[in-house]
Amino acid sequence: MKREDSSPSPASGEGQQQQQQQQVSPEDQELKAQREARKKAKEAEKAAKEAAKLNRKKAMEEARAAQNVVAEDWESSSFGYFPLMNSSSSKRRQFVAVGQLKEKEGSLAFAVLREGLETAQIVFSSSLPRPLLKWLEGVPVESLIDVFGVVAAAAAPLVGVSQQHELHAEKVFCVVRAPPELPFRIRDAMQPDNDNEAQGQIRVHLDTRLEHRWLDLRVAGTFAVACAVSEVSRHLRDYLLHEKCIEIHTPKILGGASEGGAFCFELNYFNQPACLAQSPQLYKQMCIAGDMKRVFEIGPVFRAENSNTHRHLCEFVGVDLEMEIKETYIEAVDLIDNMFKYLFKKLETDFTKESAIIRAQHDVPPFEFLEETPRLTFAEGVAMLREAGIGLETIPEDISNFDLSTELEKALGALVKKKYNTDFYILLRYPTAVRPFYSMPCPDDPRFSNTFDVFMRGEEIASGAQRLHDAELLKQCCSKRGIDVQQLRSYIKALELGAPPHAGMGAGLERIVMLYFGLGNIRRVSLFPRDPKRLFP
Amino acid sequence: MKREDSSPSPASGEGQQQQQQQQVSPEDQELKAQREARKKAKEAEKAAKEAAKLNRKKAMEEARAAQNVVAEDWESSSFGYFPLMNSSSSKRRQFVAVGQLKEKEGSLAFAVLREGLETAQIVFSSSLPRPLLKWLEGVPVESLIDVFGVVAAAAAPLVGVSQQHELHAEKVFCVVRAPPELPFRIRDAMQPDNDNEAQGQIRVHLDTRLEHRWLDLRVAGTFAVACAVSEVSRHLRDYLLHEKCIEIHTPKILGGASEGGAFCFELNYFNQPACLAQSPQLYKQMCIAGDMKRVFEIGPVFRAENSNTHRHLCEFVGVDLEMEIKETYIEAVDLIDNMFKYLFKKLETDFTKESAIIRAQHDVPPFEFLEETPRLTFAEGVAMLREAGIGLETIPEDISNFDLSTELEKALGALVKKKYNTDFYILLRYPTAVRPFYSMPCPDDPRFSNTFDVFMRGEEIASGAQRLHDAELLKQCCSKRGIDVQQLRSYIKALELGAPPHAGMGAGLERIVMLYFGLGNIRRVSLFPRDPKRLFP
Repeated sequence: MKREDSSPSPASGEGQQQQQQQQVSPEDQELKAQREARKKAKEAEKAAKEAAKLNRKKAMEEARAAQNVVAEDWESSSFGYFPLMNSSSSKRRQFVAVGQLKEKEGSLAFAVLREGLETAQIVFSSSLPRPLLKWLEGVPVESLIDVFGVVAAAAAPLVGVSQQHELHAEKVFCVVRAPPELPFRIRDAMQPDNDNEAQGQIRVHLDTRLEHRWLDLRVAGTFAVACAVSEVSRHLRDYLLHEKCIEIHTPKILGGASEGGAFCFELNYFNQPACLAQSPQLYKQMCIAGDMKRVFEIGPVFRAENSNTHRHLCEFVGVDLEMEIKETYIEAVDLIDNMFKYLFKKLETDFTKESAIIRAQHDVPPFEFLEETPRLTFAEGVAMLREAGIGLETIPEDISNFDLSTELEKALGALVKKKYNTDFYILLRYPTAVRPFYSMPCPDDPRFSNTFDVFMRGEEIASGAQRLHDAELLKQCCSKRGIDVQQLRSYIKALELGAPPHAGMGAGLERIVMLYFGLGNIRRVSLFPRDPKRLFP
Repeated sequence: MKREDSSPSPASGEGQQQQQQQQVSPEDQELKAQREARKKAKEAEKAAKEAAKLNRKKAMEEARAAQNVVAEDWESSSFGYFPLMNSSSSKRRQFVAVGQLKEKEGSLAFAVLREGLETAQIVFSSSLPRPLLKWLEGVPVESLIDVFGVVAAAAAPLVGVSQQHELHAEKVFCVVRAPPELPFRIRDAMQPDNDNEAQGQIRVHLDTRLEHRWLDLRVAGTFAVACAVSEVSRHLRDYLLHEKCIEIHTPKILGGASEGGAFCFELNYFNQPACLAQSPQLYKQMCIAGDMKRVFEIGPVFRAENSNTHRHLCEFVGVDLEMEIKETYIEAVDLIDNMFKYLFKKLETDFTKESAIIRAQHDVPPFEFLEETPRLTFAEGVAMLREAGIGLETIPEDISNFDLSTELEKALGALVKKKYNTDFYILLRYPTAVRPFYSMPCPDDPRFSNTFDVFMRGEEIASGAQRLHDAELLKQCCSKRGIDVQQLRSYIKALELGAPPHAGMGAGLERIVMLYFGLGNIRRVSLFPRDPKRLFP
């Protein structure tokens, strides 16, 4: 349990004296008698000062001794700093988590204890020994504290803490002492992001948070987002495993260059050229060629793209799925649609406390979705934009070579939200020309493809398609686009053995969390983000 | 469903004729009459031949037409190759998985259908149209087939297939045609690894399998191992989430060099030096400093180590845990011990079919473990070896600078197995000198440390410790070992804010699977292994 800010404690007399500077006024040389008298007075003053100084020194030493008090033992002491915890003994003490405080019963001081997302008020009664209280004053904020005491229901409702039970302290020990100064105050970092800064509140900039992420994680809003990442991957994985998808781990180090080669981080692999995987695309398809039927991977993907936007990272966690299909790629769209709806429902029912904490910091309307997800074709989406008079100058007559910009995607998201009242929808049948070379063209019109994008709050979070499972057709598509088939020889070899028809998608884990909670910047989600300008910590 | 080897089908007459070569004997010039007679005979012969040739040609064309027959439609055709599956329509046909065949009814031919780990016998009755049967003969092994028919219990027990229900085919279609030649036969690759090769069975070498992993995955034993990897990570994750550990994703691209710098893959990150993470060690500790209490990660780790052994990979999946501890690092040892026992129990109860398939290929005794895992100190382990007279020439008197070699670890594993009857045990209190710089020394003897290794079948699968959570002590330990503190500045900064006492471990996912099933080589577990000599596919 971490000590948070205590209630304003009056600065002690000793502390004030410590900071006082000694200043002597300049002498006047006019009259000797006056001088003599002054000299005497001065000597007396000096003597008094020395005495005072000695007293102060003694008091300071006492104070220091009181503050540095080492508690050797839990039973025999009632306060102090524990020695280094190096597993020297186990007393099998019963620890109660802050979130688990429950009632069992004239107070002087208060402090707030924090443990994860839970906070509780701790009461130090005036009947406690004075050295304990004096020592406690000196324990720095954010120190790790063990408290022994009695739990009681608060007399009046407590504001600003998560627990309505107080802990009436009898013993208090410090396990780990925090430094006297922190890079920023947790209290400041907890201010709502979109609050009016003109009110004079101190704000902690995102860069400062990222620079000291280990401190930022102690901020409830940041911690709850980290929990959200864990929860989202848990639910996605649970759903996929339930749907008989097999979790795979494909290599991140690839020989040569991946998928044609742009935006690759290159490295030397025992004197062979290699690069970091930009996606598990080809490998998950090889698994499908190996009859694994349905596979998924949640793991890092790397993009050496010099994009400095709110939604791009150079390393992020990809959620990748690939599955055999029987008759149409809509089977995959259905599964993916249901996966996301499962996730949203789970977050609504099982993540309420954390969601409220995130919303307290980032006040964005809750995410809305429908039982029946709207599915529009790309052409229908473009028609909606045209009807609304949006993007008329950029949308060409023939859309078979056109793709939506991020701005148009957002505008379309707003139109869909207005029409269907959902933050979640799917766009199908993108132009073949704007999709990867391994996408299957539509059977009725090869200018368009069996592809789809999934949107949350008007931003793309997943992209998918039926793939070209026929090696000959794939080779034709490659040569049409000028892609070197030699680079893809393993992939093509795999398909040549007779790969079943299949479809799949790739999503970004951080984006899902960012867009569900409307966090506005993907760096709020990634624990230690990597972008073209950030490689540390 | 994939077509497996069919029962030996007699080569058709047409096929034999196709391969016959035409040869004309040389002429004799001795007698004209004879010549004339011969000429006439020859002409007659020629005419006959031409007629035969025409007949053959016609027959071949018929055969080719019969084999290339395209089935446009499921309802109106009863056999043939389906056109390219490009999601052109969905008839919402009811597909029954091979593993789900259940009974609802004079036969000519048999074939085996495979779907994942399930196989079924398919019966082609003599009452089927002759063109269907003729066509079927030409469908290559490993093609993807849709069969429509009636399911019936087999009259006699079926050997060599997983289902005891046969499918009596009425219609059969090929969705994807396999090539006529495969890099190896699935049948050969299914031979038990440790079977006697002298019996003349063809074996498929591991390198050949890895070269064509997409084909090797169709081998039941390989597929079951891939399922095991998925299952093992599912159970580990379930256990850790249940124990309130938060799943994190730490960066794989690190600025500078990680943990001191040896064995790093280096890369250029937008003109800054960077390297691939050798473990999430420092980052998971930063999360603990950020009060996340318990965190874990299952993700890739990278080691540029030129080790060519059965148990080393240059890229593998790390299972990493870090947790706050209250009184002693044994709290972490307990959790890890319980996690593994949970895993073993789950594999015993929920993975029986796949385990049997793996054991059919790799015949190793089942993994044994105890409710109460033996925990020995390093010193006790060394004493057991000495008592058994093992390693006497290499074990020094003073073991405070000594570590066990892989061979001695295996020998100790055998001794522990003999004494305790378990393949699973834990060794505690390693010499401080042979452990990472961030390990906490034992409180009673700093030559040893609060560290541990976890063993399966005598091989290390996890390594853990209480960490130095005190920044000052950590800096001292670094300078004693000559480690550049500047490289670790983020890490030390994080600890300086007051990190709680904590402990953790790192394990290798592939090793756990390899050792549980006794597979003997980690490359059998990794889907697409990376070692100093293997970067493809």
